[in-house]
Amino acid sequence: MAQNIYDEPGFFGGYSRLERSVHGLAGAAEWPVLRSMLPAIAGLRVIDLGCGYGWFCRWAAENGASTVLGLDISEKMLDRARAATDDDAISYRRANLDELTLPPEAFDLAYSSLAFHYVEDAERLYRTIHHALVPGGRLVFSTEHPIFMASSHSGWMTKTDGSRTWPVDGYSVEGRRVIDWLGAGVVKYHRTVATTVNLLIRAGFRILRLEEFCPTAEQIEANPALAEEVDRPMFLMIAAEK
Amino acid sequence: MAQNIYDEPGFFGGYSRLERSVHGLAGAAEWPVLRSMLPAIAGLRVIDLGCGYGWFCRWAAENGASTVLGLDISEKMLDRARAATDDDAISYRRANLDELTLPPEAFDLAYSSLAFHYVEDAERLYRTIHHALVPGGRLVFSTEHPIFMASSHSGWMTKTDGSRTWPVDGYSVEGRRVIDWLGAGVVKYHRTVATTVNLLIRAGFRILRLEEFCPTAEQIEANPALAEEVDRPMFLMIAAEK
Repeated sequence: MAQNIYDEPGFFGGYSRLERSVHGLAGAAEWPVLRSMLPAIAGLRVIDLGCGYGWFCRWAAENGASTVLGLDISEKMLDRARAATDDDAISYRRANLDELTLPPEAFDLAYSSLAFHYVEDAERLYRTIHHALVPGGRLVFSTEHPIFMASSHSGWMTKTDGSRTWPVDGYSVEGRRVIDWLGAGVVKYHRTVATTVNLLIRAGFRILRLEEFCPTAEQIEANPALAEEVDRPMFLMIAAEK
Repeated sequence: MAQNIYDEPGFFGGYSRLERSVHGLAGAAEWPVLRSMLPAIAGLRVIDLGCGYGWFCRWAAENGASTVLGLDISEKMLDRARAATDDDAISYRRANLDELTLPPEAFDLAYSSLAFHYVEDAERLYRTIHHALVPGGRLVFSTEHPIFMASSHSGWMTKTDGSRTWPVDGYSVEGRRVIDWLGAGVVKYHRTVATTVNLLIRAGFRILRLEEFCPTAEQIEANPALAEEVDRPMFLMIAAEK
């Protein structure tokens, strides 16, 4: 079952100060790529799995989605999300993605940003989403990249020439990873790229596009800290069609 | 253009002593997975891109393929392959995969083992193969995994706890990698998983399955050196359908 770390006071405070928490989609360097993987959103019934503060839900409604349902495990996140809009097209509901049930063929687009790596049973989740999409409906999501998540040593190492390198080990050992992030013991689930792709295909999806986040030269110029993302991808992004 | 390192005397000598050169498919730990990605082979017209000594070509013919065409850049490899069979269903031809042209809809199965990472223009190659397959035809191939190939530091490093880890850097910097293998400066081309998947899809393929080689417990028991393959994948394998 997915851990609800977001409602712990210390964690929530740290999370709320992240660039992407303060600035929303504009504060997420991978958003332009993720956005380019979306279908034209006008008229679509959208579900956002792990909606956080509701930045994407509001963006979707502003861009003409007919309805937007935002799900999150955190009451605090949902309270903030609800307070930020009075758009009748948007609704929010508490949900644990590991226990999610959804009605059949109720959505045209399922979206998720950086929530699926908290889910233990990805196969169940992908099947649940497939069931809830109309034929031709699309799933677009980002998740932590397994290159980023595999090793117990979560941080850069230094090569003999002095340059940084990212350690990868235990790549094929899937399952639980506990890391210290924003002061809390955060439980995540490591899955290989192959497992993610194959579970989606077995659930009935067709893979449309796969991306491994790399910042543009313009993004690095504006934020030099992003340069390290060229060395190893932090985010895996997939667009798939029912 | 792909380098023909195989015809250099020193390299050929080293290559001919590799486990997979001596024992063929049985000497390649990833073969059981790659085989499970193939369609039933009886009656199929098969092309093997980078056939080497022809082990797969002979296996395909023995398992009922109607015709098998093996391509390789190396005359020495082709000489060995030709000497190893008198099966009329098998033919061999010299070809550089970077300049390959093939007739339309002439094959049911395109296979390649560890050759595509020598190819500079993967997009051209995938389009050439797509053009040469019948509708419903399948491409099944292995290539060096980008996790294995990305870093200029090609070897294990040691973490503070003394355990091994594989360095990854420059992952998103695609292109030429020159490594010392079997005493020679071997030129390979690094592409991310995303690029490989997206180029296949753009060429018209549907992804059927993706695998990142991890040995089984039985394989590790029989050959303890394989244990390190659990820590980082050396081979990426893809099955795709036209």
